[in-house]
Amino acid sequence: MSSLANATLFEVFSIWGVLFIALLGLGYAFLLRVQIMRHDKGTSKMQEVWGAIRTGADAYLGRQLKTILPLIFILTGVLFFSVYVIPPSDEALQRFSKFTPDIVRLIVGIGRAAAFVAGATFSLIVGQFGMRMAVEGNVRVASASRRSFSEALKIAYRTGTITGMLTDGLGLLGGTVIFIIFGIASPDVLLGFGFGGTLLALFMRVGGGIYTKAADVGADLVGKVEKNIPEDDPRNAAVIADLVGDNVGDCAGMAADIFESYEVTIVSGLILGLALVSITGQLKWIIFPLLVRGIGVLSSIIGTYLVRGKKGEDGAKKRDALKDINRGFYSSAAISMVAFLFLAHYYMHEWRAFFSVGVGILLAIVIDEITKYFTHTHHAPVKEIAESSKTGSATLILKGLAIGFESSAWQFIVIALTILAAVIIYWGQPVVFVLYGVAMTGIGMLTLTGNNVAMDSFGPIADNANGIGEMAHLEPQARQTMADLDAVGNTTKAITKGVAIGSAVIAAVSLFGSFLTDVTKVQAQMGIVENLRLFVTGIRVSEPIVFIGLLIGAALPCLFSSLTINSVTRAASLIVNEVRRQFHIPGLMEGKVKPDYKKAVDICTISAQKELIGLALIAVLSPILIGMVLNVEALGGFLAGVIISGQLLAVFMATAGGAWDNAKKTIEDGLYGGKGSECHKASVVGDTVGDPLKDTAGPALNPMIKVINLVSLLAAPIIIHYKKTDIGVIVSIVLCTLLIFGAIIYSKHGGLTFRKCREEEANA
Amino acid sequence: MSSLANATLFEVFSIWGVLFIALLGLGYAFLLRVQIMRHDKGTSKMQEVWGAIRTGADAYLGRQLKTILPLIFILTGVLFFSVYVIPPSDEALQRFSKFTPDIVRLIVGIGRAAAFVAGATFSLIVGQFGMRMAVEGNVRVASASRRSFSEALKIAYRTGTITGMLTDGLGLLGGTVIFIIFGIASPDVLLGFGFGGTLLALFMRVGGGIYTKAADVGADLVGKVEKNIPEDDPRNAAVIADLVGDNVGDCAGMAADIFESYEVTIVSGLILGLALVSITGQLKWIIFPLLVRGIGVLSSIIGTYLVRGKKGEDGAKKRDALKDINRGFYSSAAISMVAFLFLAHYYMHEWRAFFSVGVGILLAIVIDEITKYFTHTHHAPVKEIAESSKTGSATLILKGLAIGFESSAWQFIVIALTILAAVIIYWGQPVVFVLYGVAMTGIGMLTLTGNNVAMDSFGPIADNANGIGEMAHLEPQARQTMADLDAVGNTTKAITKGVAIGSAVIAAVSLFGSFLTDVTKVQAQMGIVENLRLFVTGIRVSEPIVFIGLLIGAALPCLFSSLTINSVTRAASLIVNEVRRQFHIPGLMEGKVKPDYKKAVDICTISAQKELIGLALIAVLSPILIGMVLNVEALGGFLAGVIISGQLLAVFMATAGGAWDNAKKTIEDGLYGGKGSECHKASVVGDTVGDPLKDTAGPALNPMIKVINLVSLLAAPIIIHYKKTDIGVIVSIVLCTLLIFGAIIYSKHGGLTFRKCREEEANA
Repeated sequence: MSSLANATLFEVFSIWGVLFIALLGLGYAFLLRVQIMRHDKGTSKMQEVWGAIRTGADAYLGRQLKTILPLIFILTGVLFFSVYVIPPSDEALQRFSKFTPDIVRLIVGIGRAAAFVAGATFSLIVGQFGMRMAVEGNVRVASASRRSFSEALKIAYRTGTITGMLTDGLGLLGGTVIFIIFGIASPDVLLGFGFGGTLLALFMRVGGGIYTKAADVGADLVGKVEKNIPEDDPRNAAVIADLVGDNVGDCAGMAADIFESYEVTIVSGLILGLALVSITGQLKWIIFPLLVRGIGVLSSIIGTYLVRGKKGEDGAKKRDALKDINRGFYSSAAISMVAFLFLAHYYMHEWRAFFSVGVGILLAIVIDEITKYFTHTHHAPVKEIAESSKTGSATLILKGLAIGFESSAWQFIVIALTILAAVIIYWGQPVVFVLYGVAMTGIGMLTLTGNNVAMDSFGPIADNANGIGEMAHLEPQARQTMADLDAVGNTTKAITKGVAIGSAVIAAVSLFGSFLTDVTKVQAQMGIVENLRLFVTGIRVSEPIVFIGLLIGAALPCLFSSLTINSVTRAASLIVNEVRRQFHIPGLMEGKVKPDYKKAVDICTISAQKELIGLALIAVLSPILIGMVLNVEALGGFLAGVIISGQLLAVFMATAGGAWDNAKKTIEDGLYGGKGSECHKASVVGDTVGDPLKDTAGPALNPMIKVINLVSLLAAPIIIHYKKTDIGVIVSIVLCTLLIFGAIIYSKHGGLTFRKCREEEANA
Repeated sequence: MSSLANATLFEVFSIWGVLFIALLGLGYAFLLRVQIMRHDKGTSKMQEVWGAIRTGADAYLGRQLKTILPLIFILTGVLFFSVYVIPPSDEALQRFSKFTPDIVRLIVGIGRAAAFVAGATFSLIVGQFGMRMAVEGNVRVASASRRSFSEALKIAYRTGTITGMLTDGLGLLGGTVIFIIFGIASPDVLLGFGFGGTLLALFMRVGGGIYTKAADVGADLVGKVEKNIPEDDPRNAAVIADLVGDNVGDCAGMAADIFESYEVTIVSGLILGLALVSITGQLKWIIFPLLVRGIGVLSSIIGTYLVRGKKGEDGAKKRDALKDINRGFYSSAAISMVAFLFLAHYYMHEWRAFFSVGVGILLAIVIDEITKYFTHTHHAPVKEIAESSKTGSATLILKGLAIGFESSAWQFIVIALTILAAVIIYWGQPVVFVLYGVAMTGIGMLTLTGNNVAMDSFGPIADNANGIGEMAHLEPQARQTMADLDAVGNTTKAITKGVAIGSAVIAAVSLFGSFLTDVTKVQAQMGIVENLRLFVTGIRVSEPIVFIGLLIGAALPCLFSSLTINSVTRAASLIVNEVRRQFHIPGLMEGKVKPDYKKAVDICTISAQKELIGLALIAVLSPILIGMVLNVEALGGFLAGVIISGQLLAVFMATAGGAWDNAKKTIEDGLYGGKGSECHKASVVGDTVGDPLKDTAGPALNPMIKVINLVSLLAAPIIIHYKKTDIGVIVSIVLCTLLIFGAIIYSKHGGLTFRKCREEEANA
């Protein structure tokens, strides 16, 4: 087996270069922050509204930190001590051959724990810092929109870019540093890094999803539906919670989700790359993904900086803004592709890896197009949904469900074709090469993460600016600018959503690939199977025990979806009651008395945090339980089941939700009687049903399938090493079972939150 | 390999005994028919309504036959010539060793084609004859209800029992006759029998589902929702179509579906049983399932005959009726269990097979309980849905979706535990034994098919009697009797629905098991793998190509659901327009002019038939295409994907639909303001969304997953034998691809039906 000692000068230089690029990305983010903070925050009325949003955001972020920290503390310990349950790999002993095995064990333990903390912290930084920046940006966008469209656009987009570059920079930094320190022993440590990121992403995605939709649905049900007052009306007590929610969900949640995919694709890329290094003796398989990522960051820096809006324009602004953002995106894409060509020709001396990365970029485009087809107002599906509103909300819902199912079918086919591409590219090679190809597709797909996250974060910033404008009663001219930006933001957000699901599935599949090679490696070390070289361990669904794993795996996303939808409706019903109560306060409806925004913010914050623990426990413990009760092959079946059922539901919910949303928008734009018509009412029902599906339950599945795959990777060696009759295993099985069932019951009944809020309500 | 020549006298006697029992079941059905036909058909007004229903039913059945016959004709030829593509098995050569291979080929070809025709014909008889009997019964129930509750109950239940006994008798007859003629060569021929049954079930299930819900949703949307007139109001032009639809869906569709499960479990039970015979040399493995089935038929005859209602009762009739029906069921169950015990002890001399069958009966009970928990008015889920109507239809829909997903999760766990039970029962034995155990679980689960189908068919008979009562303005006393019977029918229908899905999944899993052993056998004959004895071929999801199969398999039920939901909404919108048009006919709303019922019946009939072809093509051709383009292992992955995604969606849709239905009923019974309240309106939306899910799209997946598994079994040898580069294979691939994409496009756009109806509409 070859070590990294035989790296060429170019390769050593490359690795340090990538590290430099990662730092450059972070520096760019810092530079943008300095730029943004220089802009003014507008009138005192605007700052008052903004102050409420910021306080709400701070409250959420603070409480989130308090909820998560103890768990991170415990898990850091678990990861450190895990090396005492299962010894470090042969590669680790080889990498640190100067030391005794005991010292190596200590090094790996510390490394893994530190990597976990780094993964968790980076994810937290992306989410929390990104969201704080979004809050800083929104009021400045509102203020700038009173002066110039291009300035407002530039501020909004660059604020979003900060989150984008944090995602890129931190993801690359972590992977590269671990690789530099641990070399061929990286997999031992990388898993800790990946686990930290995925776990935090799960928290932020699920918490953010519940928060944002509880506030949104709650505010709409009373405000728009019952009282017929406009969105963002200052008399609605949930309006600030709704604005905070946009940041919590679309900014913190989405950024953490994509950071996670970005991180786990590099983790599985390096693991599979190292497997190829050990087979071929060529270092290039592992340098390649790092260089691809480095190129991506550089081109994102250039592309995002090009987005600035033309000065002194007016007229068709909306189109111009989207064109501007797209120009940035395509510039980045073009730069990357050219650089990849050079890389393939001059460094790799072959084209297969290049094609895999290219398939990834193609996949991003195809998924984007499919998402657009099914959810955009210009195409048949949304038009059909809008038309079905003529026979009422029931047929509108049915049409949306049918469209959701259909899109799931096509997305399955697309992912299947992607894997088929990897099979064809590495035709005749051992399975490990194909798995590597899939991982490179994931790397390719996320090349332009910087741009993607920037486009996504742009959404809530523009949305919030618009809300501040409404509540601070700004001039019509400025309001129009902000409304235009908001509309552009809705489009860019929708595009990112498709990328998030697609990349989550590809990331999960490549983690599944790493799981297979990892299991084979451990089994080979124990003499259970032959060497890795030409062979990956078989997960036979034809074995009843594996089929059982497959079934249970498929059950999990269903359970998860059920629990998250319930969480939202439960939290929303609390909001509904609260807003209704406040509407009865004398003078409030006349605008003389201000509602108590903080109460609604508190309800959302508490609900979102409490519901997390149960869901996280289920996701983390279930693969361990399956592996221990059945066996490691059944765990493989379980992972396949989770991926299949997770993708089905995630795509179904995202598409149906998005399509209903846009069907409502087309009707609001004047179709079939426009606002206030019966058709509009039907479409509002569709949109309200779709909201928690597309923004909570669906997106929650992205981190879930990744966390489960990562935990399985971590747990696999333990499962293989220990017998079912070991006392430790028996105790663990009992403990896991109790905790999982406890978590399901806790989540089903909404934990303490719901009861507490109900009690408070009863007391009041 | 052992032949059947060494059967003991008891065994020979048993097989002929089973044949006798099958004929006895059919005789019992004939006897009941004679009994029923003796009863009177009531007043001329009743007969007039009934005449309209009968004409509608005949029209549907006639057109269905016309649509299906050409396809049966073609496929009979295909099945006959299939023996010239792939030679008969070694077992067939051995069984008919007196003849030359060419003659054997001819025998098997004729046998397979004849078996296909028999399977199709039996399925047709069960569906068509059962439905005709239901139509004969309903008016007699209506008439009897004017005299006595017990008589009405007896007629309704016994009419249902005719369908039940046809299902039992014909299913057992076919399997036994084939076994007697072909012995160890049965698998060659049984597949034809299974394929005939599954294909017809697909037609009747999907056609029936589309028909019934197009009529129901169409009638409700205009009648109940727009015009606020009661259900079954004679002024509604779709009311006869709706009554016909109940028979088409719940009687013909459901009976064919359960017949299919009954048939394919015996097919896979015999295939796997023969595999065990060849391993152990003991004939008992194959005699056992036949005897179990025979016992089931006998006990169903006794149990169903016990249901007759007490004479001279009144008061709590509803409860008594259900009690009566349940008493019949539990009598049958008790008789079966005792007989199984004797069988295990005195014939099998071991308990494993008995336990497998017992798990099947247990499974039926558990699924029944879960279905009840999630959809019955007494339990939390439906109560929660009803409560969520307070915040409008959107939250009600969300709650239903969450409950649907949750029930999917638990049903996965239940099926997983069922397979685990088979693993534990056959612990330490080769995989084939475990697969046999799963097949025996399927056999056990369907032991009381006679009772189950009787209970199910009872539903539409009571429902139609009630409709006839409404339209013929019968006396209040009689109306009350019929309303009570109708309510009981709703409960018994719901129970059967759960059994239908559960048995479909178990049947599909055991077909999957047969697929595995079959593939292994062919591969062993070709020298690709070792002998079957200890080994079943591996379907490795860890192979990228198999994972691709898994993904595409998962896509198919999504596509199917999307297409069937669309078919219903499309057909329903045609009905809505037609009923609206007729409401404008002067004098109609005043009851002076009778609406044109026939027009609505025609629309439903045409829609239901035309949409079938596309769906059937997709189901039949896709496994062939996957197998040829990828390979037979990928086809195995494909089957697993179909089962997983099919079960997920089928359970989700059935549960959500059932729960919404009953939530509406609780509100109609007076909760939250009762009929006409805002809560009621919200619940009507939920019910309308749920209708096509629970009665069309969901049930359509049952035959679909079985058809696909059966086609794969048929196609597997061909796929293994031929190379991808053979010209025949290439032509087939191109042809299948074109046909599948044509079918998708055809189905998506509603074929010619929709365009034609639209054109007619435009012309009118």
